[in-house]
Amino acid sequence: MSEPYLSDLQTRLRQFAQDRDWEQFHAPKNLAMALAVEAGELMEHFQWLSEAQSEQLAPDKLKTVGFEVADVFIFTVRLADRMGIDLADLVEQKIKLNEQKYPADKVRGSAKKYTEYATD
Amino acid sequence: MSEPYLSDLQTRLRQFAQDRDWEQFHAPKNLAMALAVEAGELMEHFQWLSEAQSEQLAPDKLKTVGFEVADVFIFTVRLADRMGIDLADLVEQKIKLNEQKYPADKVRGSAKKYTEYATD
Amino acid sequence: MSEPYLSDLQTRLRQFAQDRDWEQFHAPKNLAMALAVEAGELMEHFQWLSEAQSEQLAPDKLKTVGFEVADVFIFTVRLADRMGIDLADLVEQKIKLNEQKYPADKVRGSAKKYTEYATD
Amino acid sequence: MSEPYLSDLQTRLRQFAQDRDWEQFHAPKNLAMALAVEAGELMEHFQWLSEAQSEQLAPDKLKTVGFEVADVFIFTVRLADRMGIDLADLVEQKIKLNEQKYPADKVRGSAKKYTEYATD
Repeated sequence: MSEPYLSDLQTRLRQFAQDRDWEQFHAPKNLAMALAVEAGELMEHFQWLSEAQSEQLAPDKLKTVGFEVADVFIFTVRLADRMGIDLADLVEQKIKLNEQKYPADKVRGSAKKYTEYATD
Repeated sequence: MSEPYLSDLQTRLRQFAQDRDWEQFHAPKNLAMALAVEAGELMEHFQWLSEAQSEQLAPDKLKTVGFEVADVFIFTVRLADRMGIDLADLVEQKIKLNEQKYPADKVRGSAKKYTEYATD
Repeated sequence: MSEPYLSDLQTRLRQFAQDRDWEQFHAPKNLAMALAVEAGELMEHFQWLSEAQSEQLAPDKLKTVGFEVADVFIFTVRLADRMGIDLADLVEQKIKLNEQKYPADKVRGSAKKYTEYATD
Repeated sequence: MSEPYLSDLQTRLRQFAQDRDWEQFHAPKNLAMALAVEAGELMEHFQWLSEAQSEQLAPDKLKTVGFEVADVFIFTVRLADRMGIDLADLVEQKIKLNEQKYPADKVRGSAKKYTEYATD
């Protein structure tokens, strides 16, 4: 992977798994599940909050939730490594695709439009 | 955020949202939902495959699934930005916590132990 | 299973899978994934809506989303069948546990309390 | 709802929420999140197991996982109530749609076909 930060992180996480003989559990199927499980744990903190409340977490809560975001991130990077994909390159491609799909002058200022576009 | 790659990406994604007047929809609650939705779309590709099959995706499929991983990554970085957390720092802290929680010489070579530890 | 509606539904869904030789794919692990994927598809319809908007879906949308709820329900019942559990009995037990865990006179009228209790 | 079991269950769960003044938190958006969170908790038990292991849970584990299935079921029924949809009717319609979409003689005996069909 061309992006050093992600490349280094993949190497560390791979080593972490190898040191524990955990590579055997890290089939992409299982990592995708683990990622979705972490996404659920992250979401749990927000489920009964209003959108406004979700913007104003207390410092302790913010750190707890932040670690859930980190868990999702870690499994995403680990999965990319096990799939052998260049995550930074795909992210770059995806942002460019989104720029074409949602031209700013076409979608600006309309909740309705956003809802329609973004659930494609 | 101290890590330039993530910091730059957050800035780009923020600008992307601002240009479309989408910041109004990006409350942390909603972004956490969107992240979980993308995690579900990613997982869908693997649900009926065996673990072995999930390691051997055809090139076309690999790219399709790779874009789903990129979607998860993008929402993770966007959420970190809206929450105002330093994602790279939390990832670093979390890896160190995991090293303490799962010492290599204690957990190595046991599926049972892995299952028990890792579902905490 | 003692509840005829669920029992009959399990039999129909089992027959549906057998007729297509799909039982081989319906390991509990895979069904749990499929259920979570459907839950993600359901949630996608709500991710950018306000809570108030989510109460007022247009009739067409309501039917579309309703089918997603049905998909979740179907996989839940299928999974219970493959796990060999009595779903109606566990639901009954769980409601009773919740009544003990969240006594009405203790938790009433407090968002804060709800949030704390319900994220346990 | 025409199906007495589901209708009675909806009434009980509605009363449970009303007794605790929790209806205010149960917007369909939030219930869909809660359902997905429970689906994640359910899936967590299976993420590192093989498909074969997922078929052979020990009795204690089976009960624990069974309660997670019950949680998903309860939120599904609660959501249907808050959306005002006839869940049993939609389930019936959906099964009939699936019978048309996946004709037994066309899809039988092919993992490849199943994977293609079922990820539509």
